[in-house]
Amino acid sequence: MGLNSNRVDHYSGSGHAGQVHTFETTTTDQVTITVSSETKTVHNVCLPPKKSTLQKLRHRLSEVFFPDDPLHGFKNQSRLRKLILALQFFFPIFEWAPNYSFSLLRSDVVSGLTIASLAIPQGISYAKLANLPPIIGLYSSFVPPLIYSVLGSSKHLAVGPVSIASLVMGTMLTEAVPYNQDPVLYLKLAFTATFVAGVFQASLGLLRLGFVIDFLSKATLLGFMAGAAVIVSLQQLKGLLGIVHFTTKMQIVPVLSSAIQHRNEWSWQTIVMGFCFLAFLLATRHVGMRKPKLFWISAAAPLASVILSTLIVTLFKSKLHGIATIGHLEKGLNPPSSNMLYFHGQYLGVAIKTGIITGILSLTEGIAVGRTFAALNDYQVDGNKEMIAIGLMNMAGSCSSCYVTTGSFSRSAVNANAGAKTVVSNIIMASTVLVTLLFLMPLFHYTPNLILAAIIITAVIGLIDYQSAIRLWKVDKLDFLACLSSFLGVLMISVPIGLAIAVGVSVFKILLHVTRPNTGVLGNIPGTQIYQNVNRYREASRVPFFAILGIEAPIYFANATYLQERILRWIREEEEWLAANNGSSLKCVIIDMTAVTGIDTSGLAMMKELKKMLEKRSLQLVLANPGGSVMEKLHQSNILESFGLEGVYLTVDEAVTDISSSWKPQP
Amino acid sequence: MGLNSNRVDHYSGSGHAGQVHTFETTTTDQVTITVSSETKTVHNVCLPPKKSTLQKLRHRLSEVFFPDDPLHGFKNQSRLRKLILALQFFFPIFEWAPNYSFSLLRSDVVSGLTIASLAIPQGISYAKLANLPPIIGLYSSFVPPLIYSVLGSSKHLAVGPVSIASLVMGTMLTEAVPYNQDPVLYLKLAFTATFVAGVFQASLGLLRLGFVIDFLSKATLLGFMAGAAVIVSLQQLKGLLGIVHFTTKMQIVPVLSSAIQHRNEWSWQTIVMGFCFLAFLLATRHVGMRKPKLFWISAAAPLASVILSTLIVTLFKSKLHGIATIGHLEKGLNPPSSNMLYFHGQYLGVAIKTGIITGILSLTEGIAVGRTFAALNDYQVDGNKEMIAIGLMNMAGSCSSCYVTTGSFSRSAVNANAGAKTVVSNIIMASTVLVTLLFLMPLFHYTPNLILAAIIITAVIGLIDYQSAIRLWKVDKLDFLACLSSFLGVLMISVPIGLAIAVGVSVFKILLHVTRPNTGVLGNIPGTQIYQNVNRYREASRVPFFAILGIEAPIYFANATYLQERILRWIREEEEWLAANNGSSLKCVIIDMTAVTGIDTSGLAMMKELKKMLEKRSLQLVLANPGGSVMEKLHQSNILESFGLEGVYLTVDEAVTDISSSWKPQP
Repeated sequence: MGLNSNRVDHYSGSGHAGQVHTFETTTTDQVTITVSSETKTVHNVCLPPKKSTLQKLRHRLSEVFFPDDPLHGFKNQSRLRKLILALQFFFPIFEWAPNYSFSLLRSDVVSGLTIASLAIPQGISYAKLANLPPIIGLYSSFVPPLIYSVLGSSKHLAVGPVSIASLVMGTMLTEAVPYNQDPVLYLKLAFTATFVAGVFQASLGLLRLGFVIDFLSKATLLGFMAGAAVIVSLQQLKGLLGIVHFTTKMQIVPVLSSAIQHRNEWSWQTIVMGFCFLAFLLATRHVGMRKPKLFWISAAAPLASVILSTLIVTLFKSKLHGIATIGHLEKGLNPPSSNMLYFHGQYLGVAIKTGIITGILSLTEGIAVGRTFAALNDYQVDGNKEMIAIGLMNMAGSCSSCYVTTGSFSRSAVNANAGAKTVVSNIIMASTVLVTLLFLMPLFHYTPNLILAAIIITAVIGLIDYQSAIRLWKVDKLDFLACLSSFLGVLMISVPIGLAIAVGVSVFKILLHVTRPNTGVLGNIPGTQIYQNVNRYREASRVPFFAILGIEAPIYFANATYLQERILRWIREEEEWLAANNGSSLKCVIIDMTAVTGIDTSGLAMMKELKKMLEKRSLQLVLANPGGSVMEKLHQSNILESFGLEGVYLTVDEAVTDISSSWKPQP
Repeated sequence: MGLNSNRVDHYSGSGHAGQVHTFETTTTDQVTITVSSETKTVHNVCLPPKKSTLQKLRHRLSEVFFPDDPLHGFKNQSRLRKLILALQFFFPIFEWAPNYSFSLLRSDVVSGLTIASLAIPQGISYAKLANLPPIIGLYSSFVPPLIYSVLGSSKHLAVGPVSIASLVMGTMLTEAVPYNQDPVLYLKLAFTATFVAGVFQASLGLLRLGFVIDFLSKATLLGFMAGAAVIVSLQQLKGLLGIVHFTTKMQIVPVLSSAIQHRNEWSWQTIVMGFCFLAFLLATRHVGMRKPKLFWISAAAPLASVILSTLIVTLFKSKLHGIATIGHLEKGLNPPSSNMLYFHGQYLGVAIKTGIITGILSLTEGIAVGRTFAALNDYQVDGNKEMIAIGLMNMAGSCSSCYVTTGSFSRSAVNANAGAKTVVSNIIMASTVLVTLLFLMPLFHYTPNLILAAIIITAVIGLIDYQSAIRLWKVDKLDFLACLSSFLGVLMISVPIGLAIAVGVSVFKILLHVTRPNTGVLGNIPGTQIYQNVNRYREASRVPFFAILGIEAPIYFANATYLQERILRWIREEEEWLAANNGSSLKCVIIDMTAVTGIDTSGLAMMKELKKMLEKRSLQLVLANPGGSVMEKLHQSNILESFGLEGVYLTVDEAVTDISSSWKPQP
């Protein structure tokens, strides 16, 4: 191979190579290095270690399903220890319970009572949002948190009904069976959908298919949540304006026109009181966001408003007859509802569809919230385990008169702010709800509906995050497009279609990235072995006689034809450039395969054809740094043989120095 | 920065750094190099040149739609020359016609007559395959080749009806309207589908959306063609066994059971004669494939069989009454059929669907054949222009009683073998068909249907390429899966669904590649600046205090969560490895971004969070060689600031040397 690495070239080029060797006795180290780099200038590109198809499949499956190696803690442990670890693995309560202390309990009681004061009015409100009786919201704030506290691994998640899942369930079920038409059927469908959601969530976790929720990208969710928030807020016009006959549709146009059509039903008392409380709630929310230390103001405001408004209505009920109230609520614990699950009949499809969509949405919210607070507080949450916990909690919920629940973003934030230390805060919250269910239900008789509307609006308005949307536009136009399409899709068409469009846009983005990858001409940065894109690095200069091309994508069927055309065009342009600026002809094409992360049979055929075409034009084609899987496929398809040993180099630099030295007349 | 390049480290590490400098007077070059590498050790990572959104969009669109820069020949030309170039661009005939010579004509006449002798029997047979009157096949071998000879840019494409498109059209239309039920409506739908196919093909070319056909990967087509060939061959049992009442279904089970059910209709004369000719045709095909010089034997065999079988039937017609023949064929040229296009009514949907699917399939075949022979004969075919040519040819065909045509693989191969030099061979072929249409039609009266069946089987049997399928299995399991699913889908369900499944599998493959990318730990190859995967290169050794991770995919919403988990697991494993084998602790994580070809907002959020998490664990996170678009997005989202200047390096080597030198106590 001779003296042909970049470094050695400097020596030999300056004519001092001989001199270096003469220093051998005095500067041994230097010479060793020089010699070693002489013999090692060209490194072979290795094939990856040989594996059978079964081994490869096993490796691939373990990467797909167990990327986090969930059992790594079990290695090299005694049998007893493994048993304990397994218990802790399946029931995180065994992990924290032994170390639970009084000081932790104090923090958890404070935070638990705080989120309870939010959970009770929100529970009632969100149940209304799902077109369910208000009490279902309280039931749903009792059983699921208890189950989560045994199974869940997040310390800060506050479990209960959430706005998005409530909205989606309300929308989808109402379109099939309006609640007023057949309340029992509606309830049956809601519990069945909850059960389906739970089964779906738990099986995603069990089958370790958690990556399914990743396809709802942050951008998609941003648009979706904003769209949902707008619709939910507009729906609350019913409560805020005191309209009795409101549309059950969810698109923006029918909702607005319905609000205007029923002008005659507007009640001025409701409007005045509603907007006053709405202003109060928004103001406290603003204070809480501005000064995190005053979070308790915004946390206490909903309950305070409920108490205040209920008092007002109770005291002046003779004068305020235009104001609709919640009415009679049954005292008592969650009744069992497993007999209400609905597994046949014409509405089963609706229930399953609703269950899957609310399931995936609530899962996304729960996991995202759990991960966010885990990252903030420096612990890990296992996504797949969380899915099982949330899934089991919903399955149990569906049998005890609860509808879909998950970790709520707003309440979890309050929980963390109030100093929650463990999931015990959920138990405290559930106990408070229990007391409410057993003793305080009559107090809600005169709670006006308008206050629920105001609470919902205050809760969802924070979901409209236009600043993040602007950031998306600045950073990534296609992400913005996904965001916009889910926003408009939800607003104009429907929740499932809006989501489907947004997922489609996201997938299209991946396909576009692969179908039309970046390619570029690389040049050498003088004095180094580094080759970089000449358009990006002004100091990078083209090497005479060479066209060095970088390809930034796997070579797949979707881009093989494109890449062939593009590479031929690059070669044509480089030939012209070299002839014009350098006077040299093109002799060799080097393709830098560093970023070619995979190749399929179409790509292999393309490489073979390209090699043949360039050979006809007396151009040498060599590859630099093909990755493991690419090398393996080149080898298996016998294309590697046509390149030969001299056709594949470990780095671009070695390729350039070795090939150009082979052109020089041998001494 | 100090003495911290890989090379300089060797000097300083060995304690000879001082000595090198003392040689300054005797070995100047060396010292210069040392000094230059001292000042240049760390290179800044550049942002790509600033561009406005509009410029970026324009660049992106030109890469998506004009990767081959089709107008590059027009640059720096006079106006007249541009006009001539434009004429030649749109009508390739102007390119070759001026240089056309007698010697070229001689080659073209020979090859034209050869393919005519194939085209006439195949035309009749393929029309039968599409359940159309045989004469439509001859019409389709007359007008389209003439139009292609003006517009087409391939020199070897032999244009006419092909088996796959005929089969698909026959299948899809027969399912809606069996030919026997309403022959006129069937013809109308066939012409309309042809028109739709032409419009679709031409618009794909005009809109430069040619990449759509790339989504039918080679693997998909392999399986699809094999499945279609099996079905077509089985369908020919009707002709070969002499069955009169045959099923119009296309799936394998009903076809086979129909052949057996109608045992009583089998005619022994038909069977004996049919299988004799089939054996003859298969034998000549075998000879032609084995010895390319004897290609004329296989090329002449079909016409010879037609003549021979017609003679036999004519001579012994009194005794061979069980043999079905083509019957009366009208003499004369293509009648106009634009009045038969069907643009409203209940079957329009079927016609459009059939048109699009046959259009895309025939386009795929035509383009692939054109490209294959262009590559073999060292000229270029512009895919988008070819699409326009094929599309216009089908639009014209639909108005002159032709059905879908394209470049046939088998006839183009014969054409090239027979020495075709230009597209004039198509004109010669069309002229021969013209003579046939005007004068020879009565001769086909007693041509038996069985010979058409034998010709079809011989033509399609070559599409079953099981050896390529075995190669797929060896090289790429997922490609094999795509191939298998299109094969089984076509065989068991239907053509469109089979194709849809196969495209789905192919797209899933891309998504899987992005969702679960390869990651690995890199180590230094001693004595070089090269870092490679330690699992692949045994000589690559981990660097103490560092975890160097390579990621081989864009960081997108679909893999951001996975990558975060996987990176954290790599860090945990590297910490354990370093502690066990090296006794050193982990101080710094380097992520080699060379193969990270893109990043979206989810990926950016992940990087930000990862940085924060590692900071909490007092681990430094730096990036090596982020690509242009990645750098830009890191910059736009202000994440780059949190990394700072010291957090982004041009190469892994520079990162390692610079960071480790910064840990050493300064002298």
